[in-house]
Amino acid sequence: MHTDTVRVLGIDPGSRVTGFGVIDVRGREHFYVASGYIKTPANAPLAERIAVITENLDEVITTYRPQQAAVEQVFVNVNPAATLMLGQARGAAMAALVMRKLPVFEYTALQVKQAVVGQGKAAKEQVQHMVVQMLGLSGTPQSDAADGLAVALTHALRNHSLAAQIRQGGLQVKRGRFHG
Amino acid sequence: MHTDTVRVLGIDPGSRVTGFGVIDVRGREHFYVASGYIKTPANAPLAERIAVITENLDEVITTYRPQQAAVEQVFVNVNPAATLMLGQARGAAMAALVMRKLPVFEYTALQVKQAVVGQGKAAKEQVQHMVVQMLGLSGTPQSDAADGLAVALTHALRNHSLAAQIRQGGLQVKRGRFHG
Repeated sequence: MHTDTVRVLGIDPGSRVTGFGVIDVRGREHFYVASGYIKTPANAPLAERIAVITENLDEVITTYRPQQAAVEQVFVNVNPAATLMLGQARGAAMAALVMRKLPVFEYTALQVKQAVVGQGKAAKEQVQHMVVQMLGLSGTPQSDAADGLAVALTHALRNHSLAAQIRQGGLQVKRGRFHG
Repeated sequence: MHTDTVRVLGIDPGSRVTGFGVIDVRGREHFYVASGYIKTPANAPLAERIAVITENLDEVITTYRPQQAAVEQVFVNVNPAATLMLGQARGAAMAALVMRKLPVFEYTALQVKQAVVGQGKAAKEQVQHMVVQMLGLSGTPQSDAADGLAVALTHALRNHSLAAQIRQGGLQVKRGRFHG
């Protein structure tokens, strides 16, 4: 990886499915690295579902070695039990990130839509379409994976000087762990 | 530690404070090992609060090397934002346990009160009082720490043959990691 490149892991947490996307950011350019989603077993005990989330995210981090993480903020649901479950899944995902010492940045759905589509009322399909355009993809990623990529892109678009920040030591990233 | 002894870590998760208690269980006897609580900074970003929970729980696990964990199930709150926050804290705590490969058991507040006091409508002070009695403590632990101990005791009382299960290999606990 080029020293001016910052690798960002974007996460879209959900009760059942956690989407993720990995991109490289070099100046104002963005490059697709990987994306996918983690699906938890529907009726498994909570501990097992949390293990599926943390183990798989851990594998993503080990494989792609991102330097920063961006996580979408979730909406509270009208159903309190669903809100609790969503919170637990999101807390587990963030725990997996912070236990690997990744700096975590949070963005609301509104911020993601504004950054990627240019307006906050954009439909899900517009976000997906813009992700494909901005990363020059030949196919359309699965919708949760696209949301993960959109959060990563949001972080990149809102922080054009990511690499410069790292070079100046403003962000706590250990250079030695990455192949600069 | 005696080979017939099982060390249990009990967790009472909360938005602001996570209580914990560690006990040794030998047959029908229970021995106090440690207890305390983890308080997260009030207005810190979520990632920082989650880091405080996971790092401190990780330290508890490294220090006391429990073989099993018991976690209290939380109530959904009338306030959706509070429910989401509670869920995130609980998800992070459970992530810290499962990332250390601890088998996690869950108990409702009702089950804890029934197991420790004998009836589900017990007041918080009765639970605290019974924890002191059952573990022969000379002082009263802080209330969140007492709740952590109560969850651990609940797990012990509901599983009188914990050590036998481990000897028979019915539970996935690596013997080599513990000082039997």
